Amino acid sequence: MKAFNVGLIGLGNVGSRVWHNLLTHKKLLAEKSGKIIEIKRVALRSLQKGYNLGIPKEILTTDWQDIVNDPEIEAVVELIGGIDISYEIITSALKKGKDVVTANKALLANHGQQIANLAFEQKRRILFEASVAGGIPLLQAIQDGLVANRFLMIAGIVNGTCNYILTEMTSQKSSYAEALKKAKELGYAEANEKLDVSGEDSAHKAAILCALSYRFWPKVEEIYTAGIESVDPMDIQYAADLGYVLKLLAIIKKHPHSKKVEIRVHPTLLKKDHILSSVSGAFNAVIVKGDIVGDQLFYGRGAGGDPTASAVLSDLVELARYPSDAYHARIFFSSTESEYKIMPISEIISRYYVRLNVVDKPGVLASIAQILGRKNIGISSVVQPEVSNLSQGVPLIIMVHDAKEKDFTEACAEMSKLPFLKGNPVIYRVEDFHAQSE
Amino acid sequence: MKAFNVGLIGLGNVGSRVWHNLLTHKKLLAEKSGKIIEIKRVALRSLQKGYNLGIPKEILTTDWQDIVNDPEIEAVVELIGGIDISYEIITSALKKGKDVVTANKALLANHGQQIANLAFEQKRRILFEASVAGGIPLLQAIQDGLVANRFLMIAGIVNGTCNYILTEMTSQKSSYAEALKKAKELGYAEANEKLDVSGEDSAHKAAILCALSYRFWPKVEEIYTAGIESVDPMDIQYAADLGYVLKLLAIIKKHPHSKKVEIRVHPTLLKKDHILSSVSGAFNAVIVKGDIVGDQLFYGRGAGGDPTASAVLSDLVELARYPSDAYHARIFFSSTESEYKIMPISEIISRYYVRLNVVDKPGVLASIAQILGRKNIGISSVVQPEVSNLSQGVPLIIMVHDAKEKDFTEACAEMSKLPFLKGNPVIYRVEDFHAQSE
Repeated sequence: MKAFNVGLIGLGNVGSRVWHNLLTHKKLLAEKSGKIIEIKRVALRSLQKGYNLGIPKEILTTDWQDIVNDPEIEAVVELIGGIDISYEIITSALKKGKDVVTANKALLANHGQQIANLAFEQKRRILFEASVAGGIPLLQAIQDGLVANRFLMIAGIVNGTCNYILTEMTSQKSSYAEALKKAKELGYAEANEKLDVSGEDSAHKAAILCALSYRFWPKVEEIYTAGIESVDPMDIQYAADLGYVLKLLAIIKKHPHSKKVEIRVHPTLLKKDHILSSVSGAFNAVIVKGDIVGDQLFYGRGAGGDPTASAVLSDLVELARYPSDAYHARIFFSSTESEYKIMPISEIISRYYVRLNVVDKPGVLASIAQILGRKNIGISSVVQPEVSNLSQGVPLIIMVHDAKEKDFTEACAEMSKLPFLKGNPVIYRVEDFHAQSE
Repeated sequence: MKAFNVGLIGLGNVGSRVWHNLLTHKKLLAEKSGKIIEIKRVALRSLQKGYNLGIPKEILTTDWQDIVNDPEIEAVVELIGGIDISYEIITSALKKGKDVVTANKALLANHGQQIANLAFEQKRRILFEASVAGGIPLLQAIQDGLVANRFLMIAGIVNGTCNYILTEMTSQKSSYAEALKKAKELGYAEANEKLDVSGEDSAHKAAILCALSYRFWPKVEEIYTAGIESVDPMDIQYAADLGYVLKLLAIIKKHPHSKKVEIRVHPTLLKKDHILSSVSGAFNAVIVKGDIVGDQLFYGRGAGGDPTASAVLSDLVELARYPSDAYHARIFFSSTESEYKIMPISEIISRYYVRLNVVDKPGVLASIAQILGRKNIGISSVVQPEVSNLSQGVPLIIMVHDAKEKDFTEACAEMSKLPFLKGNPVIYRVEDFHAQSE
């Protein structure tokens, strides 16, 4: 059986599991790919890590150039993360005629277009199944299994850290700080959690999902992104009373009557009985709505060494199975101009939850209702829960029917000026997943 | 752009949607496959149907041989169902050097091995994504996206008709007959519902899932298969009180310490908060547990013209994209002897729910507990709900801990002989989805 020589760059959490699982599943992978997938060289920062894993000394190097310049290596697996060096590694590898596998969503979100263009010019493949939703074969589903569909919507939970924290805040009624602390203790959150909890990591994944389904790479800074740092358990509780669950979602949705695509990441309220609401802990789950196939959901572990390694290995099998030249189909998005473009957040239409903290006196609700009425925004429900200490103000929770984001935020700005309001309105978008065909 | 010529055999519910969607998505499919996928010929029983759909007269035929013998046709799509003629069509097409796409689970479950062998000999491809779970790209996930994994378990709801009926019986507390009637009215059940409600259709799908994950085709008659016809709404209610939901599942599970694989189809109790429990109506959902990736769930529409057409079209794109000779990897299971074999149902280990109808007198529970005790079967809970009419006997519901099927059925047989028992014990297996790695 022919060998398929791979160079592995990065031996962290994911890289070490790629090494391990390739070793323990070597025979299986050979049977399934028709080639013996062999890691010919490993580049890493500190050689000691390689010794600890029992990797033969002679294949270890601290210089990634040794891998990219090795003429016998057919595919390079980049698993160091970050943007600058990984960009250099991947572009060098493609220029040297190697196929590339990466899990690097930050890099793709920021330089996906250039990398896809380069791969296309070089007639090489760049595969990145592991970059979104970890072990879930979601990108493959979008590109192959659901290939016949026009995508009406892709939306879901693509960050396990945030989902763990929100689940904890919901089930244990704990504060954000408490839930974050526990997430760190259990290894579900990094020491520096910023990239996850700010929503930025989800935005990177949204950019990749957009590129694959609508064939254009949105600018990361154009993706409306709100994280979970300021979520108050109070709102989780009030929403629960109304039958809703709070999840951080990435939403990519085509507008029904134009070629505009909403791309946004924010904490979102879902009906309690929606299947995404039952996705708890560090799991990921993504809904894909195709115009032919209807609704699909993909669920699994979105992070962690092993699930991510599973995706990396599936990309390697694909490279080993098929020759590069049979393969331009998947990177078509770099060769054709997309007809789609991003829709500004101000234009989206959504339902909203808003909590106002008001002084308890007559006429308050009337003033608020008037402001919403002038913007033609219909109220679907109002709750004013009993509170013990009136001096702090009383919460007033209003759910409104479908409204244009611009109108709703203008209404909120007007409310903020009302003399009896304490603090700013707290708002959450409510998602019903009604994406429509043309 | 080169054409990829397809012959379509069968213009029923699925065939007509393949025709329609291929027409409406022609440009998209060309961009994604690199070829213009063209239906060159359509074979159908009555030409009128073709006229009604506006298919050009000159490409219609009532003789499938016209398609199989057309040297310009590269791929044959078989969508007539049944076993005998479809077997002849598919084997003829492969022998004539054509690739084949089919949605025919009954045929594959019964003749999968011969067909796979023939395809392998002929170096042709046989793709059947649409045969299991309709539009969900499940077979592709097993063969490609999760390819690096050894499968510990594949289990799920693969028959929408049964799931609709059970959902209806649960939510509306209706009888089986009432729910079936409604399913027929809404088009979720065929006029002849037998194949679905008997569990046979699910068993066919289980056979295919087994072949792809464990590389052997089990004999259909060796798959333990129980349907939903005799489900009593009473048990759904009692189970609900205990926190369980009843679903018809197909379960393929490797035994942890041997090369034996459980393959079974039966109504199964799941914990209410398990994600499969929230799959309602005519939807399908399948859990795949890989040794590297952990738990995954795939959810979507498992039947219907459009979802099934989506899967058929994805198979056609795959054929159009890649030349046949790059492609032996996927049908490896016909070329290597599998090390796995089916485990008889008597050897499985499961938790059980049993409902006994007993005469209400002292000592009854003791006798039953003794029988279970002698078989070393532990009781996890007992419920004796209050009933108004004691003369009909009183229901006694017992949940038992993990037990060997053989021991449990023997215990049930002993109970049946007890003088105070009215009717036979009603049993359901309880699934916790604890599949283990070696």
